[in-house]
Amino acid sequence: MFEDRTKPRTEIKDLGEFGLIDHLTGDIELVQESSKYGVGDDAAVIDPKGKKVLISTDMLMEGIHFDLTYAPLKHLGYKAAIVNFSDMAAMNALPTQITVSIALSNRFSLEAVEELYKGLKLACKAYNVDIVGGDTTSSKSGLAISITVLGLIDEKDIVYRNGAKEGDLICVSGDLGAAYAGLLILEREKSAFVANPDMKPQLEDNDYILERQLKPEARVDIVKILKDSNIKLHAMMDVSDGLASEVKHICKQSKLGAAIYEDKLPIDQKTWDAARVFNMDPTMFALNGGEDYELLFTVPQSEFEKLKNIPEVSIIGYTTDMESGINLITKNNVSAPLEAQGWDGLKTNKKTEE
Amino acid sequence: MFEDRTKPRTEIKDLGEFGLIDHLTGDIELVQESSKYGVGDDAAVIDPKGKKVLISTDMLMEGIHFDLTYAPLKHLGYKAAIVNFSDMAAMNALPTQITVSIALSNRFSLEAVEELYKGLKLACKAYNVDIVGGDTTSSKSGLAISITVLGLIDEKDIVYRNGAKEGDLICVSGDLGAAYAGLLILEREKSAFVANPDMKPQLEDNDYILERQLKPEARVDIVKILKDSNIKLHAMMDVSDGLASEVKHICKQSKLGAAIYEDKLPIDQKTWDAARVFNMDPTMFALNGGEDYELLFTVPQSEFEKLKNIPEVSIIGYTTDMESGINLITKNNVSAPLEAQGWDGLKTNKKTEE
Repeated sequence: MFEDRTKPRTEIKDLGEFGLIDHLTGDIELVQESSKYGVGDDAAVIDPKGKKVLISTDMLMEGIHFDLTYAPLKHLGYKAAIVNFSDMAAMNALPTQITVSIALSNRFSLEAVEELYKGLKLACKAYNVDIVGGDTTSSKSGLAISITVLGLIDEKDIVYRNGAKEGDLICVSGDLGAAYAGLLILEREKSAFVANPDMKPQLEDNDYILERQLKPEARVDIVKILKDSNIKLHAMMDVSDGLASEVKHICKQSKLGAAIYEDKLPIDQKTWDAARVFNMDPTMFALNGGEDYELLFTVPQSEFEKLKNIPEVSIIGYTTDMESGINLITKNNVSAPLEAQGWDGLKTNKKTEE
Repeated sequence: MFEDRTKPRTEIKDLGEFGLIDHLTGDIELVQESSKYGVGDDAAVIDPKGKKVLISTDMLMEGIHFDLTYAPLKHLGYKAAIVNFSDMAAMNALPTQITVSIALSNRFSLEAVEELYKGLKLACKAYNVDIVGGDTTSSKSGLAISITVLGLIDEKDIVYRNGAKEGDLICVSGDLGAAYAGLLILEREKSAFVANPDMKPQLEDNDYILERQLKPEARVDIVKILKDSNIKLHAMMDVSDGLASEVKHICKQSKLGAAIYEDKLPIDQKTWDAARVFNMDPTMFALNGGEDYELLFTVPQSEFEKLKNIPEVSIIGYTTDMESGINLITKNNVSAPLEAQGWDGLKTNKKTEE
């Protein structure tokens, strides 16, 4: 509903597959020294120069992961790239290259794909990432985007999920729950729009949480800050499914328990305000909202002095032995098992259900 | 129509996303020394040990690239992997790792995904490739498979499309057009089945061409043979869209023309027989059928003596200067511009239209 519908429409089939790829990727200039050959052959060529290569992939499906009623295609392209960049940050690396596969039905014009690519290229430019390959094809219905990201890293710098030790400080970057708050606002305005197409969406004062939903960022800045501060990391991952789910992943893989303090969860005032509007608990947004793309990591207690001066990082708890379980210490000082109701791509989109 | 419909049905949502990934990938054992860490973290870790890393990606969409009416899911999984392996062979490399993203609607049961994964794993086992990551998610309708493949190679061994020189011999491995012949048989039997569901599909005597369509192979064996024979390669790619289209790619990128001899095109007797049944020209199958996954390459004439004893390779023509154009020399010794009507993923599936 927020799309510009006045633009001209060119049919993709008029260009053909190779014409389209040339059109979309012809202006790409490789910026990473490791990108030896990009689009144009059977494969791209990467020169890792002694580093290890990280690879991760994510697929976004229309109607499941995004709703084009309110997600502009340019934002969607940006977000699709960011989601993958975040996986590199989660390993303590910077993203270097992506390949992009897009499938689209004949509902989409050339101009639509151009918008999507504009967002992809904007994200790549902002993060110094090269688009080195891709595939563009038809779908019977809807839009599918599959991105694979590469990152290069020295072996000693890789941070896995399974490296946490008992007594580690559990930390998270930025704030949590805002992307989910933004989604609720968008869903509300969509419902209102469906009921009355003449109404104007009420999005004022929600810029921050809407941007967190529609145009998130990957915390490669935190990776750099942690490195510059010489902070020793034991375990790390990014918060895509919700903090509770991610804490459980790290604990399970590191064979530990955890205590998370509700009052330490970083929640922005705008997220609080939105939770109040919907008569919901902001703690639930932070624990189970998902799509925050913040970094969750554990460090030995000896790193406390270095950490405490980094404003973008909150210490939210500590790891325990496995037998103690994974618990939330509430504001009333009650300890209860942490419930993970993280977003699950395999159920129908929980977010549109709620 | 050839699927086993008697199997039990388990709903995927009963496992959840993480449960499903564990279920599908839990038994994977990494065989490549370069696979340092596979499924289970935010990214997989590859150790290229001084080699260059090749990366390529392909997306297959239901109703566009495959038809589950006649493509069993296990074969589809196998083929989806092979298509990607072939891109590595096309660069003169062996595939080493893949990531697999699958999106499926609730029409698909756990058993269906297991079948798909069985095919993927079979292909990986046959080619010594590791599944190191993936994403499994829902779709609103249909099945989408996106695979990214990695290969490791010494820089000096990489063969691009743009390296052909004037006067090179143009060679192709195996035979051409069989996959297309197989597709025509399958489409015919599907139409007959739709008209009369009680009929038995007539697939006898077509094993070879059906297998070429449903369960193709990637010619990594040719890569090895060419290496063992110490043959100098100037340009190479794989034949996925049809020989004519691929010859044009190599000529365009190498700024050359070409002469291809119709009577040198390798066409299997079964492909000839099928063409006769459909009252079509087998040369068209070879030039424009596509999905052959053979290797097209050019070598300097000095390699002729080494090449002529390799039974799996046919010399089909030579490169010329660009001004001479790209021509087919017919059996009647007439030279005419080579027409490429290669399969184009962005038009409606040509194969089901014909």
